[in-house]
Amino acid sequence: MRLTTVGVDADDTLWHNETIFRLTQDRFAALLSPYADRGDLEARLAATEARNLRLYGYGIKGFTLSMIETAMEFAGDQAVGVIREVLAAGREMLSHPIEPLPGVEATLTLLSERYRLVVITKGDLLDQERKVAASGLGDLFAAVEIVSEKSADTYRTIFSRHGTGAEQAAMIGNSLKSDVLPALEAGAYAAHIPYALTWAHEMAEAPLGRPRFAELTSISDVPAWLQRCAD
Amino acid sequence: MRLTTVGVDADDTLWHNETIFRLTQDRFAALLSPYADRGDLEARLAATEARNLRLYGYGIKGFTLSMIETAMEFAGDQAVGVIREVLAAGREMLSHPIEPLPGVEATLTLLSERYRLVVITKGDLLDQERKVAASGLGDLFAAVEIVSEKSADTYRTIFSRHGTGAEQAAMIGNSLKSDVLPALEAGAYAAHIPYALTWAHEMAEAPLGRPRFAELTSISDVPAWLQRCAD
Repeated sequence: MRLTTVGVDADDTLWHNETIFRLTQDRFAALLSPYADRGDLEARLAATEARNLRLYGYGIKGFTLSMIETAMEFAGDQAVGVIREVLAAGREMLSHPIEPLPGVEATLTLLSERYRLVVITKGDLLDQERKVAASGLGDLFAAVEIVSEKSADTYRTIFSRHGTGAEQAAMIGNSLKSDVLPALEAGAYAAHIPYALTWAHEMAEAPLGRPRFAELTSISDVPAWLQRCAD
Repeated sequence: MRLTTVGVDADDTLWHNETIFRLTQDRFAALLSPYADRGDLEARLAATEARNLRLYGYGIKGFTLSMIETAMEFAGDQAVGVIREVLAAGREMLSHPIEPLPGVEATLTLLSERYRLVVITKGDLLDQERKVAASGLGDLFAAVEIVSEKSADTYRTIFSRHGTGAEQAAMIGNSLKSDVLPALEAGAYAAHIPYALTWAHEMAEAPLGRPRFAELTSISDVPAWLQRCAD
């Protein structure tokens, strides 16, 4: 089967993201340490994020709003100082420098000579566009698709729009739940490249044994895997 | 010139939006009335929004964060109660019922029989998708494009992707700055349909005398205008 199109997840596949969220959460926990036990705080923040996900979607602005809400639950009238810091932390996250992970630039350069590359990512629209631009990788992509949800339909639509359909496409990313399972369901190939940290919402079981699935240790393994898929 | 594609702005073209922002701002001013003169407060909120636009982009989440920041500037340590209300107001905005403006449904139904209709809108990704779905108009559109900025390039790209290029496309919307001027620059037709309120960031001069421009009083005038364009 000839492959024409490769979808590439962005956060934690092309550059660090979860690490930056965790660092901000550490700072948040330190700010609230007079008011909250760390375990309680993290559980409450996770619950607040989950509850707000339907309205806020994915991204830093919604995370900032959820931190503010959680800060008031614990610190009550004393929360203003914390909220000030949370707003500043959110803005820092939104202007954080973006550096491609090891192997990313060389691999994408190679892949861009053979396939149409499409970034497929969730998150805030402007923030994700900024990161693609700041990464210096923008010119390697035929398109950037920022979506509110990654379902099988999402992949079908994008691989039709920018390629020759999901059957002739592959998706690579660090999330089994968002990058791998729905892409396989759409009929595409999919490779999982784990990142050191996984957001609780993105956990899922690896679909071992599925013929179009691969578990890779590094993005540098992608070109050889795509070659094998095409054989 | 045969026209194939019609781009349609969403907020304040298909349904109320600025009105809802203004109602929330009224509520914000009432909450802060013990601490701030209304004029000062609105000037400061506008300045905060403008400063944050580069990081937050357009939409309710960024507006909520800017209100929180402004509340602390005026109320200091007393701001917690206000912030709680601001978070609630932001969530209400994000779940506000969506009702098409008068004439919208009938006009779009008519237009969808002759042209490919594409929603082209700024704002938060998930929120704009929700509004299209909640409006009941979703099936009339060939595509929904949520963008971080409306430039001439934006229109060129979208009218190529979903149609036969900007030359054979028309854009309709309530903002001269975002809907009309860049669409004309891209080579498309453009009609301005004013809404009762215009956000300060969206003000611009009408390009009177440009052959592909029209000023219409209602969306119901669009079909006849498109007919004249094609003659």
